[in-house]
Amino acid sequence: MIAVSVVFVAAASICTLTSAQTFQRLALGCVLPPDQADFLAGQYFDIRLEVHAPVNGSEANGGVPDPEFTFTIAKADEPAQAAATYFEISEPLLEQWNFTWYEDLFAQDAHTPSVVRVTSKIYRRVALYEPGEYVATLTYYNGTTTVANWLVRALQEQKRAKNVILFIGDGMTTNMITAARLIGHKSINGKYQSKLQMDKFPVLGHQMTHSLDSYVTDSANSACALYSGHKTSVNAMGVYADSSADPFDDPKVETLVELLTRIWGSAIGIVSTASVADATPIALTGHSRSRYTYGSLVDQALHGVTNYTWTKYFGPDVFFGGGAEQFIPGSGSYQGKNYYTEFSDAGYTVSLNKTSMQEVSNDTKALGVFCTSHLPVWLDRNIYTDVLSTNKNDPSGNKKPALDLPGLKDMTLKAIDILVARGVEKGFFMMSEAASVDKQMHALDYDRALGDLLELDDTIKATIEKLKALGELNNTLILVTADHGHGFDVFGSADTEYLSSKTNDREKRNAIGVYQNSGLSQYTVTNASISYNTGVNFPANWDPRYTLAQGVGAHPDVRENYRVHKSPRVPATNITGFPANDYFVNPEDNPDGIIVNGTIPTYEAQGVHSLTDVPVFAMGPCQELFGGVYGNIDIFFGMAECLGLARGSNATG
Amino acid sequence: MIAVSVVFVAAASICTLTSAQTFQRLALGCVLPPDQADFLAGQYFDIRLEVHAPVNGSEANGGVPDPEFTFTIAKADEPAQAAATYFEISEPLLEQWNFTWYEDLFAQDAHTPSVVRVTSKIYRRVALYEPGEYVATLTYYNGTTTVANWLVRALQEQKRAKNVILFIGDGMTTNMITAARLIGHKSINGKYQSKLQMDKFPVLGHQMTHSLDSYVTDSANSACALYSGHKTSVNAMGVYADSSADPFDDPKVETLVELLTRIWGSAIGIVSTASVADATPIALTGHSRSRYTYGSLVDQALHGVTNYTWTKYFGPDVFFGGGAEQFIPGSGSYQGKNYYTEFSDAGYTVSLNKTSMQEVSNDTKALGVFCTSHLPVWLDRNIYTDVLSTNKNDPSGNKKPALDLPGLKDMTLKAIDILVARGVEKGFFMMSEAASVDKQMHALDYDRALGDLLELDDTIKATIEKLKALGELNNTLILVTADHGHGFDVFGSADTEYLSSKTNDREKRNAIGVYQNSGLSQYTVTNASISYNTGVNFPANWDPRYTLAQGVGAHPDVRENYRVHKSPRVPATNITGFPANDYFVNPEDNPDGIIVNGTIPTYEAQGVHSLTDVPVFAMGPCQELFGGVYGNIDIFFGMAECLGLARGSNATG
Repeated sequence: MIAVSVVFVAAASICTLTSAQTFQRLALGCVLPPDQADFLAGQYFDIRLEVHAPVNGSEANGGVPDPEFTFTIAKADEPAQAAATYFEISEPLLEQWNFTWYEDLFAQDAHTPSVVRVTSKIYRRVALYEPGEYVATLTYYNGTTTVANWLVRALQEQKRAKNVILFIGDGMTTNMITAARLIGHKSINGKYQSKLQMDKFPVLGHQMTHSLDSYVTDSANSACALYSGHKTSVNAMGVYADSSADPFDDPKVETLVELLTRIWGSAIGIVSTASVADATPIALTGHSRSRYTYGSLVDQALHGVTNYTWTKYFGPDVFFGGGAEQFIPGSGSYQGKNYYTEFSDAGYTVSLNKTSMQEVSNDTKALGVFCTSHLPVWLDRNIYTDVLSTNKNDPSGNKKPALDLPGLKDMTLKAIDILVARGVEKGFFMMSEAASVDKQMHALDYDRALGDLLELDDTIKATIEKLKALGELNNTLILVTADHGHGFDVFGSADTEYLSSKTNDREKRNAIGVYQNSGLSQYTVTNASISYNTGVNFPANWDPRYTLAQGVGAHPDVRENYRVHKSPRVPATNITGFPANDYFVNPEDNPDGIIVNGTIPTYEAQGVHSLTDVPVFAMGPCQELFGGVYGNIDIFFGMAECLGLARGSNATG
Repeated sequence: MIAVSVVFVAAASICTLTSAQTFQRLALGCVLPPDQADFLAGQYFDIRLEVHAPVNGSEANGGVPDPEFTFTIAKADEPAQAAATYFEISEPLLEQWNFTWYEDLFAQDAHTPSVVRVTSKIYRRVALYEPGEYVATLTYYNGTTTVANWLVRALQEQKRAKNVILFIGDGMTTNMITAARLIGHKSINGKYQSKLQMDKFPVLGHQMTHSLDSYVTDSANSACALYSGHKTSVNAMGVYADSSADPFDDPKVETLVELLTRIWGSAIGIVSTASVADATPIALTGHSRSRYTYGSLVDQALHGVTNYTWTKYFGPDVFFGGGAEQFIPGSGSYQGKNYYTEFSDAGYTVSLNKTSMQEVSNDTKALGVFCTSHLPVWLDRNIYTDVLSTNKNDPSGNKKPALDLPGLKDMTLKAIDILVARGVEKGFFMMSEAASVDKQMHALDYDRALGDLLELDDTIKATIEKLKALGELNNTLILVTADHGHGFDVFGSADTEYLSSKTNDREKRNAIGVYQNSGLSQYTVTNASISYNTGVNFPANWDPRYTLAQGVGAHPDVRENYRVHKSPRVPATNITGFPANDYFVNPEDNPDGIIVNGTIPTYEAQGVHSLTDVPVFAMGPCQELFGGVYGNIDIFFGMAECLGLARGSNATG
């Protein structure tokens, strides 16, 4: 391991925060899992220790990291033991590396990095079986200590639900749900004539999404929290982020899917409208400091972790989504191999379009990769379908458009058929993700985001009906939640004719109706000249004169006319050419709109994630575990309790 | 009644929406309460009928409204009866008036109003006692009908809770709660070391806040929904809005406080950090088409409705807040009378400061008016106290500053003492409002809004402790909710030193840290040089270098530097002088900040309300009624069920 520059994307996580805010590094002494970590009894994890010696900068201490540090574990009031003794493993070798980082933005502008030298050890694949409190102590520099207080939660070894389905609306907030309901469901005098399926769930909770290193999370580390009960750093999954350069040597935590495979052998389904290598689906089995190591993560999804001894894993029973780049042999695939062939050789039937997917036998493992990149969104698959033929996203890689595309509902219902058939009495777990709620919010393409939110709700409704028909509804815990938010809301209506007719921005702004001038939703009023014909619970008209005035507080320079975009939106572009990441209003986006200058760094071309707690809707066995307000890790512990995944000894697996 | 121009503030509500969006009027035939209205069995209400004859405009029909219209009521499958027969009252007289309105913004710009002639009747103080569905039918123009389907909900005549406390964080959203928790509660490695009191409530719900005439509500009509189970129009309370000019002749609905007084004689407490005449407190007993009829509404708060036969009401037991303008004799008070004297003459002890309030006997009715306008916010009463002496808000009207001011907690705890003493076995109802969450969000003064949100939470915590000490906790349903939202969220951090050091806006924007660069909350880190000393669960530092990057999507022209404002914020001003309502960035606000041009009409000087569903936290008897997703009217029906306020006959009251 060698020196690395720790900036932006590769910023290290923290045990205790050093003084910087924008840039972070581990403290002088660091234990990972860190102080305040919670564990499922019997869950595998690695322990990384680091001792830092800053060479320069505000904490410079001579630059010689202690190679003689010691580490002990103590349960409750029992005496502390050397970790190798406690876990009955041999003492790991000492590792050493250097890295550099910036203490703040002024240091970055001045190109004055700080250098840190590191000594480190890692204890691999250990577990704590007995519930209770533990104290893990790192001692270094002749008596300095870093103490981590750990909690192993109470045991639940019995299953209370045969199946669990976790729906994730990526980036979905209560505000978006409110807006989607308004455009998709008819209201008379303030009373809705129908509700969203998620509105009908009996239990509601809020989860706090903050990550270890930041109060605003990304989808990788929030997925890690949801799937493993361990919060990590932005862009990491299935590992705590250490300061070394290698993204695959970081200390791992065992995921729900690995636990479920090891303990019950249940069927596993992973469905997403994103690339299957995208953070939310791939974090179910992925262990990497970087969510961008796509090819390796797809290999882990099939073969499990192979560089270290870890839970055996041989791929999900259902794996549906986009992301052909990691399957077509070449630069995007792991070691350049053909992953269609790899999956096929491992017993998977492989579908590259909706028709083929629906004909697949329910008895074999199924891989479905329907396009390169992410799946086209509901609005383009159902309303503005001309968009589809402009794509070059055929999953074979032939640069032709993928036209025979499933939606989230198609994939999810087929997955249930397979999971019920293959899970039999062992039950199943499925994660089904509406990924483009997030992706289209990033693009400030609110209609496309809300369309995919309504598609998610339609999928949940169809799932409940299907489970009922299969006799599995009462056996199944269904959760609907998100991984983080975007700061979206609706603040009125826009008279798009008036807005377009005016020639200066201040006059255009008077087209916005607020309070009583917001009026009522025109999206549910049938437009005689256009048949949208997408069924109830979707808008009857996507392009009314009076639209939602909606937006976010954090955005690049944009121009808004509040009309539906007939092709996917690109709000900001680099119009000057230099520097490379310097974004202004896209000259082609909404030329008749109101320009609003940006509120985030000029190198951001899109909207960004936000702080807000996100909703959790629960129905089925254990639903009562998901009411009230709690952390994202509690979703993992709730599912683990419901599935009886804790173990008080290492007799299993 | 004479012709009135129906524009902006005075826009009429709808039964069925006419074609316009920004401007609205009642349909050709109109029944109020309208189609889809729900009723508590035995709840008093008035019925307004209107028949419209547009003289010109897109619906012109000759301009002669039908004077011969008829109106019938039918329960379920029973035969329809003339309403006067059904309710055993005499047929009301025919009324006639005209009004004008604009069909859209183009018509407004062209000054081409449409004229509508109206015939109308109103049936006053009726009630439906038998649960079930009713059909109300207005027949006009030789057979045209407007049908209203009404539902009287199931009866609950028995009390399940002795007391109900309804806390309202005006404008408070989940996003704001998340941000307040982040600045007020310490987190270690992503795990909070303490939580908000509201986080600990066992039941969580979401309420939809839409009003009758608009999907974005104001605080008057949302208060009407919460307190009476009837959604009305923006700026109306306790009435459905008809199209006549008189704001006091509109059809009324009976409120929770009126029902509780009539049926159980319980003690009533009304506490707010706003003027007591502001919409949220005054709507508990107010009946007016216009929330701006402050003096009249204060008179109603003391004497009840006096212009028509209605539920007898003699004022709340506790009435604490600001708003001295309506008490000091003069232009702000009803008929120029001295309302301190009016209340005193009615048996109230009157307090004009905190010291006096705290010394009041718990046995008598108490009025506390602590300043003109709204109470100064928590941040100014506790941190930036120099602000207080710059005010001219003494409640005596002497133009001196009010300095001996209670906060929400002081007022609420004293109110409980009085309500417990006066309610005795009859129990009590209290509404306690943190009004400036909303008011400071309007001013885009996020720190002041979040400070008042934390004060609300601190008040809830102290309330629970006090009820426990008084032996009343298990008798009391506590609800915490809001009336609407603002589109607020946090999207990262701001390095205020870096931002301030740069000279152009694009460079300043790079001070914003998003995702991992958001880092951790610096508000909970003690600042050695400043003692804030406001106790746990409030920020240890309101002015750190790294602040929250936060904002809304809907705002006037503003300039943001993301620092705390040491005096209350005024984001936009009229710098050109003409036209009168034309707002630009306030030159004195954040001169070192980033300018962001507005997204709402240029005549709006502040941020505006938003669409989002808002949270409901419930604990105590009947808490289970408040889980899941429902309308704001269901809060009323839940409280009414818990308090046993339905009546199956007119034997009571």
